Amino acid sequence: MSAPDTAVEIIEVGPRDGLQNQDALLTTAAKIELVERAIAAGLRRIEAVSFVHPGRVPQMADAEAVMAGVPRVDGVRYAGLVLNRRGAERAVAAGVDELNAVVVASDTFGGRNQGVTAEESVAMWREIAGVAHSAGVPATVTVAVAFGCPFEGEVPAARVGEVVRRVAGEGPAEIALADTVGVGVPTQVAELAEQSAANAPGTPLRFHFHNTRNTGYANAVAAVQAGVRLLDASLGGIGGCPFAPAATGNIATEDLVYLLQRMGVGTGVDLAAAARAGTWVCGLLGIDPPALLGRAGGFPSASADAR
Amino acid sequence: MSAPDTAVEIIEVGPRDGLQNQDALLTTAAKIELVERAIAAGLRRIEAVSFVHPGRVPQMADAEAVMAGVPRVDGVRYAGLVLNRRGAERAVAAGVDELNAVVVASDTFGGRNQGVTAEESVAMWREIAGVAHSAGVPATVTVAVAFGCPFEGEVPAARVGEVVRRVAGEGPAEIALADTVGVGVPTQVAELAEQSAANAPGTPLRFHFHNTRNTGYANAVAAVQAGVRLLDASLGGIGGCPFAPAATGNIATEDLVYLLQRMGVGTGVDLAAAARAGTWVCGLLGIDPPALLGRAGGFPSASADAR
Repeated sequence: MSAPDTAVEIIEVGPRDGLQNQDALLTTAAKIELVERAIAAGLRRIEAVSFVHPGRVPQMADAEAVMAGVPRVDGVRYAGLVLNRRGAERAVAAGVDELNAVVVASDTFGGRNQGVTAEESVAMWREIAGVAHSAGVPATVTVAVAFGCPFEGEVPAARVGEVVRRVAGEGPAEIALADTVGVGVPTQVAELAEQSAANAPGTPLRFHFHNTRNTGYANAVAAVQAGVRLLDASLGGIGGCPFAPAATGNIATEDLVYLLQRMGVGTGVDLAAAARAGTWVCGLLGIDPPALLGRAGGFPSASADAR
Repeated sequence: MSAPDTAVEIIEVGPRDGLQNQDALLTTAAKIELVERAIAAGLRRIEAVSFVHPGRVPQMADAEAVMAGVPRVDGVRYAGLVLNRRGAERAVAAGVDELNAVVVASDTFGGRNQGVTAEESVAMWREIAGVAHSAGVPATVTVAVAFGCPFEGEVPAARVGEVVRRVAGEGPAEIALADTVGVGVPTQVAELAEQSAANAPGTPLRFHFHNTRNTGYANAVAAVQAGVRLLDASLGGIGGCPFAPAATGNIATEDLVYLLQRMGVGTGVDLAAAARAGTWVCGLLGIDPPALLGRAGGFPSASADAR
């Protein structure tokens, strides 16, 4: 989307992954304001909602209302996360610009998270792809627990590669590999990028990192070094995982922008506006921001007041 | 020190850099216990104290008492940070195994931090080196604000290289490049490693990272990729900088150990023991640990209870 071909596109997942693991429930209006602030900061792809059972994820019960209220701005695309055909149908009806399906790389995690084995999650992706194709809406796939499973431990890269190969059969617009529980390290990023290139040649690769063990930003750098140009992040670094109660969330949009900007990699995102939005949403949620930029400030200018 | 030549040696700086920026003052006994816990976790080089004016840094006023009380264990070396001849003499008298002198890459920071210009700080290093040489104690040098200055902003890599060249004249045992205010990114790490190799060929290079803007661990990975085998870190990730009040501290020893271990890089440090020590010291200080391992736990084992 961005002009220079070395630039990284950040997919803002705060409204979905960020909010769905929070104790605090935001109003529909607050969710829409978060999206508006993301857009004002220069973000252009936003995972705004998930279409899952409201009994399981009450934080996303108003997905249709959020989609009805977000501003339709030229160049801004909204994604909705879906786990099955029903979710895909809801997402299409709600007018999302893209669907993001989730398949799992571990049977145990799949069973606990969405009641399916890895095999069954791929079958569900096929159904979702069918709905998306009929509706003319692009669909991406996120492979959960690609870096390790909270129940099974190691997830071999070759197994992830096999999932990628099978997912690729339905022609996803993108494949994202997710470190759902924040256990990954840069060597795995490189290994999984190779697996993806080998098993889904030509399909753009995206990564989704959590900073649960302080490896998320190093992983983001490794992804960029591996040629990846699509990274998920959340304003404020909000998020988490129901299976790791004290875990911090996604890598923070503002901290990622700082890191990339100082490395000379453009994102099109305004650092100060992103930091303000991150601090704002954490205030609404009543949590200390996992993001550090809002507290620390950007790179000091030479004219900084010498206190 | 460690057996495999690909291993990274972590220099534990929590007792010095970690504690000296905390509001809470620990007792001498607590400081000694922190050192003991570091040793129990497998750390073998510990920056235990600084010999600075107790009026300026009251947290280090008991440096002599700490050094008198730490266990003398085979293979464990203690460093003391010093800023001038007087500090060096105190450190030698207190029985440190190595001196760590500080020079600055920015005049403004030098003036505010220790009352000297960059030029004057190098002159002081020469005096310190003289004291160390006479006493037969190795001396290392840390170059402060090598990645950026809170007052001057950008610090050109070439200027750091020039400081390194002049420091190298006195034959330091090691040169450490410090991201004192936590603004650095991986591309700078690579650039500064080159500057160091060019200007102090043969002198081992160490890096000292703060995670103030969530770039510290990515920088550590970049350092290892650049061939660096010496990294400073602090248990619990304690630390900070008087010029960045809300800043988090050094990269955390336990989080660095996790990152390196999962990348196949040995450190000789026991992850669980380091995480316990980090959580313990943060409890004493009454702060939430910047380190995440103590909360998140290590990599999940396959036998993890499937709740």
